[in-house]
Amino acid sequence: MNWFKDTIHIKTHGKGLYPLTPVIEAHIKQWEVREGMCYLYMPHTSASLVISENYDPTAKLDLEEAMEHLVPEKQAWFHHTLEGADDSPSHIRAMLTNVSLSIPIDNGRLSLGSWQGIYLFEHRARSHQRNVLMRCLSI
Amino acid sequence: MNWFKDTIHIKTHGKGLYPLTPVIEAHIKQWEVREGMCYLYMPHTSASLVISENYDPTAKLDLEEAMEHLVPEKQAWFHHTLEGADDSPSHIRAMLTNVSLSIPIDNGRLSLGSWQGIYLFEHRARSHQRNVLMRCLSI
Amino acid sequence: MNWFKDTIHIKTHGKGLYPLTPVIEAHIKQWEVREGMCYLYMPHTSASLVISENYDPTAKLDLEEAMEHLVPEKQAWFHHTLEGADDSPSHIRAMLTNVSLSIPIDNGRLSLGSWQGIYLFEHRARSHQRNVLMRCLSI
Repeated sequence: MNWFKDTIHIKTHGKGLYPLTPVIEAHIKQWEVREGMCYLYMPHTSASLVISENYDPTAKLDLEEAMEHLVPEKQAWFHHTLEGADDSPSHIRAMLTNVSLSIPIDNGRLSLGSWQGIYLFEHRARSHQRNVLMRCLSI
Repeated sequence: MNWFKDTIHIKTHGKGLYPLTPVIEAHIKQWEVREGMCYLYMPHTSASLVISENYDPTAKLDLEEAMEHLVPEKQAWFHHTLEGADDSPSHIRAMLTNVSLSIPIDNGRLSLGSWQGIYLFEHRARSHQRNVLMRCLSI
Repeated sequence: MNWFKDTIHIKTHGKGLYPLTPVIEAHIKQWEVREGMCYLYMPHTSASLVISENYDPTAKLDLEEAMEHLVPEKQAWFHHTLEGADDSPSHIRAMLTNVSLSIPIDNGRLSLGSWQGIYLFEHRARSHQRNVLMRCLSI
């Protein structure tokens, strides 16, 4: 068994889903991992990880807009408001999605479904420098 | 350390929770995994994985109905509507639950809690053929 | 590669987020795990795991209160009501958060972000004895 690791750096420009699949697949190819597990970890509290529909761009729009409806900004009951209207909702939205994902690797590729893509979900309105920790256990 | 893998095939007949625990336990027994980790991965964007209450059938009903209230169908703001009223909600509901789960194995069994069961959560109204990728790391 | 395991016992006193980071870090230090993965598993259906903001206590308050708004108690459509008003909402809230987490270990520590803490999210109003299964794969 072997262990590979790297940190993926992503610059975000406001709320929304940013594709991660190509950069993750490139690492697996470079490391020549044939089979095993890929672990992704998000060390932030106002951005998260999501695996969802990667084909129709209207699906992506709806996932993004769903968060505005599920966890609306500017609620009277928010206590954590010092950093702006998007601050408390960003933590709540991150809590409802994922900070860690574990994806099987087979035949040198991620075993994503045909319509799946991996995304970083940025919940803050302003630009941020984000990191995604990537680990691979090669069997 | 050893590595075991298989794909579990489930035919779904409309929205709801479908039990996965027995078929997963059967694989662990057959592979004779005594200790390690069981990884489950869902390669679909309109079905997901959930671990929840397995005893009282009314709890299952409430989990299913909760999704209709949290993410109702036919919202005016949906863009992704070509494949039916249950399409966009199915991606959003999958995003709020899980595509990957990691469960410890001890003494040859999944270390589920007394009241826990593993379920495939089908979010589409029509029948679908679903796959669940199962991987076991045996220590 | 090495494998370490223990069960963390937490007594909860009503709804809310209970910090887990110190006890998990202490285990990693004691086991002298330098690099690998830490797996956390929650064998309960009315409590869950969350990684979120650990600095400002008002963020914690908002995460807790968010659940009361997302999944309110005493809905007319609940079927599962025998064990009290907080029973069905507790399963739904657990479903929306996590039962399993996988966190990288580097240089003998969890690779949490600067503002991240690991929490047990108790969804029941009464006191409960909770267990968290902790497994470490040391590379």
